[in-house]
Amino acid sequence: MSVEIIAIAEEILQGNVINTNASYLSKALFQEGYKVVGHKTVSDDKKEIIQALKSSSERACFILVTGGLGATLDDITKEALCTYFETDLILDTPLYKRLVQKWGDFPFLEEQARVPKNAKILPNEIGCAPGFFFSKEKKGFFFLPGVPFEMQKMFHTSVLPLLQKQKPSPEKKQCFSYYLCLIKEQDIDPFLRKLKQEYPHLEIGIYPGLKKVCVSFVTSEKEIEKPLQAFEEKFSENIFSKESAFIEEALQKLFIQKKKTLALAESCTGGYMASSLTQFSGSSAYFLGSFVTYSNFLKREVLGVQEKTLQEEGAVSKKTAEEMLRGVFSICKADYAIAVTGIAGPLGGSAEKPVGTVFIALGTKEEIFSGKIYIQKERKEIIQAVKEWAFSLLWLYVEKGIQPRFL
Amino acid sequence: MSVEIIAIAEEILQGNVINTNASYLSKALFQEGYKVVGHKTVSDDKKEIIQALKSSSERACFILVTGGLGATLDDITKEALCTYFETDLILDTPLYKRLVQKWGDFPFLEEQARVPKNAKILPNEIGCAPGFFFSKEKKGFFFLPGVPFEMQKMFHTSVLPLLQKQKPSPEKKQCFSYYLCLIKEQDIDPFLRKLKQEYPHLEIGIYPGLKKVCVSFVTSEKEIEKPLQAFEEKFSENIFSKESAFIEEALQKLFIQKKKTLALAESCTGGYMASSLTQFSGSSAYFLGSFVTYSNFLKREVLGVQEKTLQEEGAVSKKTAEEMLRGVFSICKADYAIAVTGIAGPLGGSAEKPVGTVFIALGTKEEIFSGKIYIQKERKEIIQAVKEWAFSLLWLYVEKGIQPRFL
Repeated sequence: MSVEIIAIAEEILQGNVINTNASYLSKALFQEGYKVVGHKTVSDDKKEIIQALKSSSERACFILVTGGLGATLDDITKEALCTYFETDLILDTPLYKRLVQKWGDFPFLEEQARVPKNAKILPNEIGCAPGFFFSKEKKGFFFLPGVPFEMQKMFHTSVLPLLQKQKPSPEKKQCFSYYLCLIKEQDIDPFLRKLKQEYPHLEIGIYPGLKKVCVSFVTSEKEIEKPLQAFEEKFSENIFSKESAFIEEALQKLFIQKKKTLALAESCTGGYMASSLTQFSGSSAYFLGSFVTYSNFLKREVLGVQEKTLQEEGAVSKKTAEEMLRGVFSICKADYAIAVTGIAGPLGGSAEKPVGTVFIALGTKEEIFSGKIYIQKERKEIIQAVKEWAFSLLWLYVEKGIQPRFL
Repeated sequence: MSVEIIAIAEEILQGNVINTNASYLSKALFQEGYKVVGHKTVSDDKKEIIQALKSSSERACFILVTGGLGATLDDITKEALCTYFETDLILDTPLYKRLVQKWGDFPFLEEQARVPKNAKILPNEIGCAPGFFFSKEKKGFFFLPGVPFEMQKMFHTSVLPLLQKQKPSPEKKQCFSYYLCLIKEQDIDPFLRKLKQEYPHLEIGIYPGLKKVCVSFVTSEKEIEKPLQAFEEKFSENIFSKESAFIEEALQKLFIQKKKTLALAESCTGGYMASSLTQFSGSSAYFLGSFVTYSNFLKREVLGVQEKTLQEEGAVSKKTAEEMLRGVFSICKADYAIAVTGIAGPLGGSAEKPVGTVFIALGTKEEIFSGKIYIQKERKEIIQAVKEWAFSLLWLYVEKGIQPRFL
């Protein structure tokens, strides 16, 4: 059961907005057993929109369109779809009344309540732009507003039920994903090639991320146990999850299950590590907090890093990382802690300590490991990679008992 | 001069990876005066790839393709383009030697060095997959690896120079963007409609973000001063930047220029505010650090929040926010500070303090403002909106002298 996703959004084509809607919808559809055959983004232009609807309907059974349904001057989707579906806009008076009741008597609400005559209205509980469903030449077309939060809600309350009613129970493919940390794509690929030869019906995907790799197996056949088992045995050390690409979720599960707590001291990551942990609901059950000591002053005053250490070894040094870690343990009774200090760049590097040089200290109050890592990337990727690397080392240590290895 | 961007990536269609490459390239091309007419994502399937190349070449002068050039088993782009451009793969021996010299003698490098006979090779300084340029029926086709960091570098060193050589000096459009904080799309739209009537040649776009709005004016004509001036006058209070959508960059510029420093105390934002500031190089010049006191223990021990306050008013209260802020000032000599505490959810809400209730305190050691804000969204958006809201209030206060207003 194939779906194509179209975004109508000049702002995406100009690079001002990233198309996260397509990603969200793809994931949700894939999980429900639908196959997303393509994404497209076109401009807020009537001809372009019509052309996109036409070509997508030649490729897919369902077309899911986001964007351009607002009431501002650059939104012309409704006009385009009146042409494509050969209909007119009419004022939906009950809708108009509901909108005014909810939002107040704004002139733009009348425009929002003008809807294509032959469309099924998909209610928007959050915003004021309704969605639409059309059927044409045995293909189904959904139109949703582009605001992610509204779009997501409407997808689940209106689109999925309608999809399932239109074409009940698509063939659910079995998909198994594995997320591996601190391993390279090239270290996995040869094994997968052999597996593919043995099990040709398996669709195998391998996707590198920062300091991690996702491997997916998709099949509609039943015999999948053996190849999965072989894969799991081969890479048991590095597989941190079968559900989530986020090492933070694996850590959260692990720490809550073991009833342990974690605290951080961050310099070069500037709060990014804490922020990555706390993006997940429930993190307060194990995460105590982070000392984002961006300045030397706070490293000294709060964490008790020695002035001498900062002077002689520098803020970016093994010793500073260790003292930051000890500082955390002296303030709070965390079971585990991580401290990082490094040079995220682009400025601040030297021949001895180039940009991307980072020192990590981690462990328990009794057992501290520390060392250097090096990431030859740019600022943003360095910060992300440090986070991935440090969390992976901690996960391997707590879950697998593997001592942290550094460069 | 039109460009279409294609991503070849099953992982994007499955929703595992967000297509940030298209966004990056669009922004860069737009700034150079090229018009991106569409984005597309297709699967790692030979027929799909060929079909996409064909249809895109009917719409655009240049086609820019990312992804599928690695050496793992699911990468079949090279095969597809040999069919489309009627050529064969040959081993590029000098390239192979360079790859082995740089990376070591890995078997997959031979595959990487097999290139289409009639392609121009685009060198990859970072990774091991080279890019390609083809010309067919007066259209130019660029193929780059999908790894963002490699792709970006190659775009600037190889693609842009070739583009400019192929079709020199495209008509550079003038584009002016304005970023406004703490204002709604609907409060700007009526003014823009009037402006559009007066200046019909102006292309006007309006894009809502979390707690902010971007307005863009594009024109190839020269008469743009008057409408811009009118817009600037009307919305002078809310325009925080003409260059960057990030309030953090506006804050950084402002604080460095005024030689002031900033520190934070974060609870519900969990480090996200600090992380947002430190994503920008140079932030250490004004940002001292953040106390991510996720636990009550750290709120008490580090920031000195009274046990009585936590008991009687709760961790999520105006008084706790104020005491957190005073705690920051008692530890370090920051000129300004912000403290936030709230309920990001989905758990932890109550009838009196539903999910999305957040208290902010901000100001100087001498002058503290505090109050409640409320964000009816989900966890991730709540955290982002709190950050935007708090930074916007601070910016308005420091730059414009406007006292923070709360609910």
